[in-house]
Amino acid sequence: MAEHFIGEFFGTMMLLILGCGVVANVVLHQSKGQHGGWIVITFGWAMGVFVGVYTAVHLGGSGHLNPAVTIALALFKDFDQALVLPYIMAQMAGAFCGSVVVWLAYKNHFDATTDKEMIRAVFCTSPSIRNLKYNLLTETIGTFILLFGALSLSPPSDTLGTLNALPVALLVLGIGLSLGGPTGYAINPARDLGPRIAHFLLPIKTKGHSDWSYAWIPVAGPVIGGSMAVLIYNML
Amino acid sequence: MAEHFIGEFFGTMMLLILGCGVVANVVLHQSKGQHGGWIVITFGWAMGVFVGVYTAVHLGGSGHLNPAVTIALALFKDFDQALVLPYIMAQMAGAFCGSVVVWLAYKNHFDATTDKEMIRAVFCTSPSIRNLKYNLLTETIGTFILLFGALSLSPPSDTLGTLNALPVALLVLGIGLSLGGPTGYAINPARDLGPRIAHFLLPIKTKGHSDWSYAWIPVAGPVIGGSMAVLIYNML
Amino acid sequence: MAEHFIGEFFGTMMLLILGCGVVANVVLHQSKGQHGGWIVITFGWAMGVFVGVYTAVHLGGSGHLNPAVTIALALFKDFDQALVLPYIMAQMAGAFCGSVVVWLAYKNHFDATTDKEMIRAVFCTSPSIRNLKYNLLTETIGTFILLFGALSLSPPSDTLGTLNALPVALLVLGIGLSLGGPTGYAINPARDLGPRIAHFLLPIKTKGHSDWSYAWIPVAGPVIGGSMAVLIYNML
Amino acid sequence: MAEHFIGEFFGTMMLLILGCGVVANVVLHQSKGQHGGWIVITFGWAMGVFVGVYTAVHLGGSGHLNPAVTIALALFKDFDQALVLPYIMAQMAGAFCGSVVVWLAYKNHFDATTDKEMIRAVFCTSPSIRNLKYNLLTETIGTFILLFGALSLSPPSDTLGTLNALPVALLVLGIGLSLGGPTGYAINPARDLGPRIAHFLLPIKTKGHSDWSYAWIPVAGPVIGGSMAVLIYNML
Repeated sequence: MAEHFIGEFFGTMMLLILGCGVVANVVLHQSKGQHGGWIVITFGWAMGVFVGVYTAVHLGGSGHLNPAVTIALALFKDFDQALVLPYIMAQMAGAFCGSVVVWLAYKNHFDATTDKEMIRAVFCTSPSIRNLKYNLLTETIGTFILLFGALSLSPPSDTLGTLNALPVALLVLGIGLSLGGPTGYAINPARDLGPRIAHFLLPIKTKGHSDWSYAWIPVAGPVIGGSMAVLIYNML
Repeated sequence: MAEHFIGEFFGTMMLLILGCGVVANVVLHQSKGQHGGWIVITFGWAMGVFVGVYTAVHLGGSGHLNPAVTIALALFKDFDQALVLPYIMAQMAGAFCGSVVVWLAYKNHFDATTDKEMIRAVFCTSPSIRNLKYNLLTETIGTFILLFGALSLSPPSDTLGTLNALPVALLVLGIGLSLGGPTGYAINPARDLGPRIAHFLLPIKTKGHSDWSYAWIPVAGPVIGGSMAVLIYNML
Repeated sequence: MAEHFIGEFFGTMMLLILGCGVVANVVLHQSKGQHGGWIVITFGWAMGVFVGVYTAVHLGGSGHLNPAVTIALALFKDFDQALVLPYIMAQMAGAFCGSVVVWLAYKNHFDATTDKEMIRAVFCTSPSIRNLKYNLLTETIGTFILLFGALSLSPPSDTLGTLNALPVALLVLGIGLSLGGPTGYAINPARDLGPRIAHFLLPIKTKGHSDWSYAWIPVAGPVIGGSMAVLIYNML
Repeated sequence: MAEHFIGEFFGTMMLLILGCGVVANVVLHQSKGQHGGWIVITFGWAMGVFVGVYTAVHLGGSGHLNPAVTIALALFKDFDQALVLPYIMAQMAGAFCGSVVVWLAYKNHFDATTDKEMIRAVFCTSPSIRNLKYNLLTETIGTFILLFGALSLSPPSDTLGTLNALPVALLVLGIGLSLGGPTGYAINPARDLGPRIAHFLLPIKTKGHSDWSYAWIPVAGPVIGGSMAVLIYNML
């Protein structure tokens, strides 16, 4: 039980350190990776998934790192329902802490950046074109692909060791490259909400609002999309 | 039999969701990946192949996802000829549906884009320089490499699990990077024709024609090139 | 014996189709990958190595695809000296043919390109700064790394199948990214000389000279660097 | 013992040849990869890790290639303390020599480059925004992730052979993409100090100072961060 919590916490923290980190690198002023483009963003998140998943599994978690995964597997698969709440708490705490670490690592660059939208973009997603109905749909589709693709993965093999985490990282790379354009592919409530809370709480120099009116989209979309994917997968 | 249809359908849909999706991300107005460049396009399609193939195989298909593959293997290898038509139907249906999903995911961005060529480019290929003879040749060469390379793959290994799908994804990455310049590497009749039909039927706001005069090239080229590859491979 | 020739021929042809192809895509006028940058070039060549090596091995060759490899292994390792000449002939023929295929695939774009340097760049390498002594040194260093790195690879494993070809592809990716800047990393006499002969012979519309005064560098450098690597490796 | 020294020496040299090499390619005047961007830099270093680690292991070293790894494992894990000094000497010597090789390979381009900052950047790191306290923190965080991620790797598997080196290369890819923005991710005292000494000693044409006032940061940060990671990992 404690291993599960520890695994999910550190795994999600790793995911968010590398994930929010790559956004910071690409969007903050004077960063060496500034203007690195979408290929940098998507590979950064993919490596975050790779490292986060294998760390979580190594420490004894399941490597969900994502409440939408945990909820969908508990509702429609045999994941232990008693673990749902501790998992989500660990994921949220890990995501929150991961984004705080990124804030510390990029502190000088946060101070040097004046665009409030860019600063918030390091923490949480926002749509390019705000249209909540379609933004919700995009997040639902993205997480549907994530769960449908994840359920089709082979079971881990002892021989592959750490490389067992590569396929899901490549799956997320593909989702980011292909479906990340409209909303920035949260596809994970903890990934978005944890850092959004951090953005709200942290004493960032030039900080705007935390865009709470959008915050429910990257929570609801992933839960709906993930659950739909498991349901349809079960039917097949 | 049903598993085959289901596998090919969902696999091809995954391929096209990620494939058409990455084009949408790079070419549509205000998308976060806009101007992401050829490296984004080719990695997006490669991840589409990776996810599409392992999903199809997991669901019970062969993971062809491509009528040119199915036809060539039925003509010159031992693939069951009775499966050819169902496979092609599943592939076409999956490709059609995949592109419709992309349209939904990028709806706001389709509405915000006024360039009709860019909108059609999300669905189907068109040559940079229109010269049907050479366009046909380029598609033939690309699919020749696809089949010749695919026939040289090792048989799947239980140990590798999902990673069995990686080599063919890297093969398509290579073809896209290297031979995609003139025609956009359809190298797959379903990948081009299914979404072209979707483009024709969907109520897209600022829609141009569906360029039917070009539509036979990415059908004929792949069938010719794929069959030639199997023939020559058999000789060796 | 025939399998060896066939393997090396087709493997080197695959290498050059994808290798010269990616350069064509990035440098020729109106190509979809034009201005795709160094990341596209290096991944294209790396995928060429991946596909070329596994194809060659599958057809019964050793997957050298490179006279510098063949010569070094025959001189200082136990590679059969009687196979050296047939291997080099197969590699040269494959490289020549591969570049001809690229010319056909990109015919319209060759016709649309007026810069003679760019057209030659599709076929063979040339230094950014011409200084034969240092150009030779750079090619020597690059091929030293290639052979030293290749000799340190693990023997192929049955389980990995096609993925056995991935490490050498990543090695060449690294060499290209890191040491390709001054001379374009020929690191392979056949890769440079075969296509240079094709450039000389083909009826390309706006063709300049084939830069024969430089042609010995990407032959001599790789042979020297490769042999030095095997020698030093043997000492260790 | 000698194998250890040889392994670490050649492994670290390979790492630095590819690592400093990719920076040279991207920043030096007239290099073919100039302006290749952060994706080129990070993939170049990642391939350096891949090749360096498998070379070192193949030659009989442990593949640390990094004094921060060696020190942390000796302090808080069971790595033989008698090997610490020879390891660090081998790593420093390898890093020094690797950067000298890059200087030779890019000699013409060093001569053609007039920006002293760019020339030093090929050898050693410097912060985008100089603020020693936070620069130290960023290096500490980066190396924390490196060690925490490396300790969570599965033990090498015979079947995977060379591919055992891939996960740590992807880990460093992720760290570079995501945490490299403020300080250029030295995360390794030898990687920074060895080439800095080379920069100081080499007769580079237009050379500025070697920025010794910053030199302790990429030594201290990695040692602190690496040791903290092992400590916390041990607690879990």
